[in-house]
Amino acid sequence: MDPNSNIVIAQGGGPTAVINQSLVGAVLEARNIPGTGRVYGARHGVEGILREDFLDLSRETPTNLERVAGTPSAALGSTRAKPDRETCREIFRVLQAHDVGCFFYIGGNDSADTVRLVAGYAREQESSLQAVHIPKTIDNDLVHNDHTPGFGSAARFVACCFLGANQETRSLPGIYIGVVMGRHAGFLTASAALARTYGDDGPHLVYVPERPFDLEDFGRRVLQTHEKYGRCVIALSEGISDREGIPVSTRLQENVERDAHGNVQLAGGQLGDMLVAYLKDTLRIQRVRADTFGYLQRSFAACISETDRREAREVGEKAVHFGMRERRSGSVVIRRTGNYAVSYDLVPLEEIAAKTRLLPDAFLEPDGTGVTPEFLEYVRPLAGPGLPTAGRLAAPPVEKKLGG
Amino acid sequence: MDPNSNIVIAQGGGPTAVINQSLVGAVLEARNIPGTGRVYGARHGVEGILREDFLDLSRETPTNLERVAGTPSAALGSTRAKPDRETCREIFRVLQAHDVGCFFYIGGNDSADTVRLVAGYAREQESSLQAVHIPKTIDNDLVHNDHTPGFGSAARFVACCFLGANQETRSLPGIYIGVVMGRHAGFLTASAALARTYGDDGPHLVYVPERPFDLEDFGRRVLQTHEKYGRCVIALSEGISDREGIPVSTRLQENVERDAHGNVQLAGGQLGDMLVAYLKDTLRIQRVRADTFGYLQRSFAACISETDRREAREVGEKAVHFGMRERRSGSVVIRRTGNYAVSYDLVPLEEIAAKTRLLPDAFLEPDGTGVTPEFLEYVRPLAGPGLPTAGRLAAPPVEKKLGG
Repeated sequence: MDPNSNIVIAQGGGPTAVINQSLVGAVLEARNIPGTGRVYGARHGVEGILREDFLDLSRETPTNLERVAGTPSAALGSTRAKPDRETCREIFRVLQAHDVGCFFYIGGNDSADTVRLVAGYAREQESSLQAVHIPKTIDNDLVHNDHTPGFGSAARFVACCFLGANQETRSLPGIYIGVVMGRHAGFLTASAALARTYGDDGPHLVYVPERPFDLEDFGRRVLQTHEKYGRCVIALSEGISDREGIPVSTRLQENVERDAHGNVQLAGGQLGDMLVAYLKDTLRIQRVRADTFGYLQRSFAACISETDRREAREVGEKAVHFGMRERRSGSVVIRRTGNYAVSYDLVPLEEIAAKTRLLPDAFLEPDGTGVTPEFLEYVRPLAGPGLPTAGRLAAPPVEKKLGG
Repeated sequence: MDPNSNIVIAQGGGPTAVINQSLVGAVLEARNIPGTGRVYGARHGVEGILREDFLDLSRETPTNLERVAGTPSAALGSTRAKPDRETCREIFRVLQAHDVGCFFYIGGNDSADTVRLVAGYAREQESSLQAVHIPKTIDNDLVHNDHTPGFGSAARFVACCFLGANQETRSLPGIYIGVVMGRHAGFLTASAALARTYGDDGPHLVYVPERPFDLEDFGRRVLQTHEKYGRCVIALSEGISDREGIPVSTRLQENVERDAHGNVQLAGGQLGDMLVAYLKDTLRIQRVRADTFGYLQRSFAACISETDRREAREVGEKAVHFGMRERRSGSVVIRRTGNYAVSYDLVPLEEIAAKTRLLPDAFLEPDGTGVTPEFLEYVRPLAGPGLPTAGRLAAPPVEKKLGG
């Protein structure tokens, strides 16, 4: 990088609980590198670059940056914009005007694709600009990564949700459905299995987008589990689809629309509500409940994985080493090198951009409604130390006096 | 209490994150009192008593009891049953058959009513049985109590939800509705205000059941807030009703049913979803989202108020002192005696049973969409120390080069 050239950092896509750790890791480490000019933060990702809407992060105190690091959701503001080639040329032009030698973009596979386009344009122009993608997504769906920053904290949150739901159905028996984020990849939903302490603990059934969902089979399995344990806890991805690839929510909505002339009450709502209606109608079990965990999963400050926090920080620091010290463009990836230890590497942007990683077969039971011990071994360190577990009374029953 | 007589403890109503602290506080303290016979736990509240379904908690180890204390949701199992006078006579008969000198019931105002009926029957029969109600409810709606065990942890959870939601709308601007538990009392919804760190932080609007909800006024205020801040975060009780006392969800459902022949897509779902549809339709703002926090609010193990945990424990211990040492029936209440300090008292069951405490006027802004500093002063210690707060970047903007 040319001496005294500036850097720009930005954040894109959906928030995570630790995305600002990556931001602050990169900012502080860039400021440590001799010869760095100004450290600029673009507001709302690429939108802010196009508008030249930059904050001068060189003038942030380390104390305030640490406070920001501990705050969920993109502190610079995020964006859903996916710029095309032409727009990336415009981005390049703005970066040049501001003497930017290195551009860092924290985000998922869409953000990686933006970085790929900008880096490609810089190469064509024989510019010395380096562009580095810093991984982030609760979906854990970036290829070449063992896992992604943001996922571990979301997995911890989901596990805690199901620990509570499992205790709730032990206390007041019934059926509980928790709908978890994930349109294509089921890593987060599968993490619900971390909630289990005892052999009969829920979630008893886990449904991910990687396996086709069959409504009638679902009903049968719920009934079987309910007969066996007197309760049933189900973890279900929002993106589950049937054998033809039609989202289950669309299918249920179709049913609803067909029913609408006769029975409007069944109509609409979210996937969880529609499945509750279906189960109540089919199984005649009284207590059937669903929660859709929604946005809480990606921005809950009180349930952060210490492992995730540390890695999100380091991945930002490493990006600065790759881009500024080594003068390389690429996407930072996390590799697992021990149990539990990681290392960081830089791979070509083409290998990450716009690609989606799914749950491997080895992590899913063949029947498609459970996870394997391999998955639990994989995910446990990511959710961090000190994950809550459940206790149970172990006392013996008392002899009846009246024949009860 | 007669030497060597046994005691029975049971849990009723909805779970909380700390209800087992009260159970374990009572069990361990009862075992400490010289002359106590057996300590029995009834499974699933009064249902278990009627079936003589008791566990001998004298045979639990303190180590296992501590593990149970840290687990959310009733470890003995709970019930929604509200026994009548006749059934309470049957309960009394079972307690007599098992030489029970003191009966403890952890629950809300319905459970207090059961204790009142059992205590009344014992008095009529000139029995020495004492019956003590141990308060518990996330709704915080028991009269004569400054607050109730379970509320502080739920308030902490709700505050953390809104802290995240507020950051989310700063990152990706839009409108966010969080639907909070509470059919009659708005304490938990009002606690969302604890999420605010900066003056423009959300929740910007707080709707509780104590104030009539007007759909058009709601739309206007959301629009005003959105124009002012570029975003709007709303905390809303599931039990909000209009001026005629009709639940808003019912009203919206009616609208939906009237629309159904023309436009089925708008139909059904939960309150939050229906309000999203209404706002999208009325305000033409693109990003409108709702989460219904649901069951997570009352059983989340990773976000417990330390104050709540301690008091839930002590209220169980105090109940044992009142019932077994002082041989008095009644309901244990928490009074605030300092900033922050509490003491415990025993009041007649008639004064608690089946009564509901609502948010006092002094806690609500006159226009009905905000809370007062008095409320924040009231609720802050209950949510416990170390509540997460948000940080923000404070860096100055960078001069534009291209005219942005």
